Amino acid sequence: MYVSYLECPKCGANYESEKPIQLCQCGAPLLVRYDLKKVKKNFRKKALHTRKANLWRYWELLPVKKEENVVFLGEGMTPLLHLKNLGSKLGINNLYLKDEGLIPTGTFKARGAAVGVSRAKELGIKVLAMPTNGNAGGSWAAYCAKAGIKAVIVMPKDAPIINRKEVAVAGASLFLVNGLISDAGKIVGRAIAEYGWYDASTLKEPYRIEGKKTMGLEIAEQFGWEMPDVILYPTGGGVGIIGIYKGLKELQEIGWVSGKISRLVAVQSTGCAPIVKAWEERKTESVFWENARTIAFGLTVPKALGDFLVLEALYNTDGCAVAVEDDEILKAQHMLASREGVFVCPEGAATLSAAIKLARNGWIKHDERVVLLNTGTGLKYPETVKTEPPMLEPGDHLPRV
Amino acid sequence: MYVSYLECPKCGANYESEKPIQLCQCGAPLLVRYDLKKVKKNFRKKALHTRKANLWRYWELLPVKKEENVVFLGEGMTPLLHLKNLGSKLGINNLYLKDEGLIPTGTFKARGAAVGVSRAKELGIKVLAMPTNGNAGGSWAAYCAKAGIKAVIVMPKDAPIINRKEVAVAGASLFLVNGLISDAGKIVGRAIAEYGWYDASTLKEPYRIEGKKTMGLEIAEQFGWEMPDVILYPTGGGVGIIGIYKGLKELQEIGWVSGKISRLVAVQSTGCAPIVKAWEERKTESVFWENARTIAFGLTVPKALGDFLVLEALYNTDGCAVAVEDDEILKAQHMLASREGVFVCPEGAATLSAAIKLARNGWIKHDERVVLLNTGTGLKYPETVKTEPPMLEPGDHLPRV
Repeated sequence: MYVSYLECPKCGANYESEKPIQLCQCGAPLLVRYDLKKVKKNFRKKALHTRKANLWRYWELLPVKKEENVVFLGEGMTPLLHLKNLGSKLGINNLYLKDEGLIPTGTFKARGAAVGVSRAKELGIKVLAMPTNGNAGGSWAAYCAKAGIKAVIVMPKDAPIINRKEVAVAGASLFLVNGLISDAGKIVGRAIAEYGWYDASTLKEPYRIEGKKTMGLEIAEQFGWEMPDVILYPTGGGVGIIGIYKGLKELQEIGWVSGKISRLVAVQSTGCAPIVKAWEERKTESVFWENARTIAFGLTVPKALGDFLVLEALYNTDGCAVAVEDDEILKAQHMLASREGVFVCPEGAATLSAAIKLARNGWIKHDERVVLLNTGTGLKYPETVKTEPPMLEPGDHLPRV
Repeated sequence: MYVSYLECPKCGANYESEKPIQLCQCGAPLLVRYDLKKVKKNFRKKALHTRKANLWRYWELLPVKKEENVVFLGEGMTPLLHLKNLGSKLGINNLYLKDEGLIPTGTFKARGAAVGVSRAKELGIKVLAMPTNGNAGGSWAAYCAKAGIKAVIVMPKDAPIINRKEVAVAGASLFLVNGLISDAGKIVGRAIAEYGWYDASTLKEPYRIEGKKTMGLEIAEQFGWEMPDVILYPTGGGVGIIGIYKGLKELQEIGWVSGKISRLVAVQSTGCAPIVKAWEERKTESVFWENARTIAFGLTVPKALGDFLVLEALYNTDGCAVAVEDDEILKAQHMLASREGVFVCPEGAATLSAAIKLARNGWIKHDERVVLLNTGTGLKYPETVKTEPPMLEPGDHLPRV
């Protein structure tokens, strides 16, 4: 393993990585730092030729020490689809979609859970707890089931029903809260203080982000170790975009990619856009968003713990932040399904709405390589599609189409 | 392309493959035959090292001529998971699950649709129609959307709601029928005769099975080009098991695997078990199953067009057929999620119920390598999981777990 230490990106404090740890003493999330010089020396691209197509192929850039601790459900190396039909319609000639619907539990949250739970198992964790908007709970419950770790999951009552079901069937302890994820977080926080459970909340343990960063590593590999010009990411808690940025920077440092890092775009909903507001005001932190509400439920994060890291990633890559309306999201979801055959989640659809805006105002140029990050399958969101198909009786005739 | 001709497995008639064709004149399905001597000469295992981890890596054993006709959504090379927790509990030391939940549209039907629609596009098809129990409709609608082919889908009103949604969002023409898939089939049959549409019903075009057979090719590759001892397959229309058998035989013929083909097990529900009944009576065809009904909706196929091919595969591999109860299926689904972290569909869960039975009666030996084929994600079946989680108010406390 090439992990050197854990580092606080806010105050610069260092911590050793061999015992369970949560936040820095200053309250900020910790990042895993590797001995990248040693990685550069010992890890060659050609090693990948014989490794399986899952996220563990980047072993030297991951924080698990022993292979026996890996909790594997098939995560990673999701497809990168070339959206030729939509791209030509929209004037973005090189439009791609990274489809995180094809991953255990149906969302990108599986990456964080795979690496987070594997490392938790390695560190001897027996019980962990987390608040969730739904999908992270589903993923962590599944990986914990396989790992033999007890998971306590608290989610808003408005989270998608499917998330309750997947947490329950995995045998985790599930609680609903009559409020938002921030209310769930406070409940979990008190229980952790009282019972000494491991806190698996977003960014409150350092390893989830290491799983998420593999999206960045895969995108680079899938483009033949070149970085695309733009990556659009639906941003709730923001771990995905922080992870992609961290992953691409690490690839730069070990010399696997060169040139400018992709411009990162944080996409939010107009119903909850704290990062967009902060970015527009050139702030380094966001302000709690009151009365958050959007059909893209995963984006309902009024104030993210890692907001300053998201904003840093946007500023450092000449990226931007864009808010889109719920009705644009539903239109985009339908466009992706009916033109490209991909049924995406509302969060993923939001990235297409944002790309359309940015192509119209010239921020995205016609020949740039643009990646939409679809964070999950639309199969978890049946309520986003309205349909009333005609009912036939046996013996009835079909009309000509 | 290495396709030689299309062959009727019933009467032996041959057909050329370069124009659209449906059934043999004798009414039986047609199978694609390749020049396997030429494939053996020109296709080497090492060619796979540099090919992507999707089903198109077996290009020489697939029926599409031009790469530009491939309609790609990320299908294939789904994970093979070692079920160590359950295996040791059940006394099956080498128990595996091939997880077809991680594929476009969330079920194995994507394989048939990927190859079937790609070939339909190559043959110039503009409109196709099919009856479906739901998942095939979802898959074909998605691939047709990308291919620019108009799809007409007819499904029973009792098919899972999610299947309506995925067909509708893909822009296909969707109709419900107040009856079973056999009623839907008759409606589609009349429309096809009247309007001249392409008939994409199970086994009524020869290419869907070519997609399904890649499950067999992948299993062999994932076991290092050895065949496991037993493969359990949930059998409705039966194309999957026919395909796996065809794929493994082709691998034998090109010399990539040797020895005995895996014993194939057709798993059905006691609520619809025509294949099991025929196998128990050593018949070569099944009889229409009256009042078919099971929670594993995909198994509600009262009489499959390819029943004789399924039975042939069972007899020729020393396999068997097993029917399981709905309550066993739900128990197995819960076991897989809570012990192994995999939320499978009821049809997939049925294979675990069957494996438990076969291990108990000694048909499966302790050290045999056994593969459960999970045909789809449980995320499409939220109604199979009952849960009433406690509701907390902000400020409430969590109990100790």
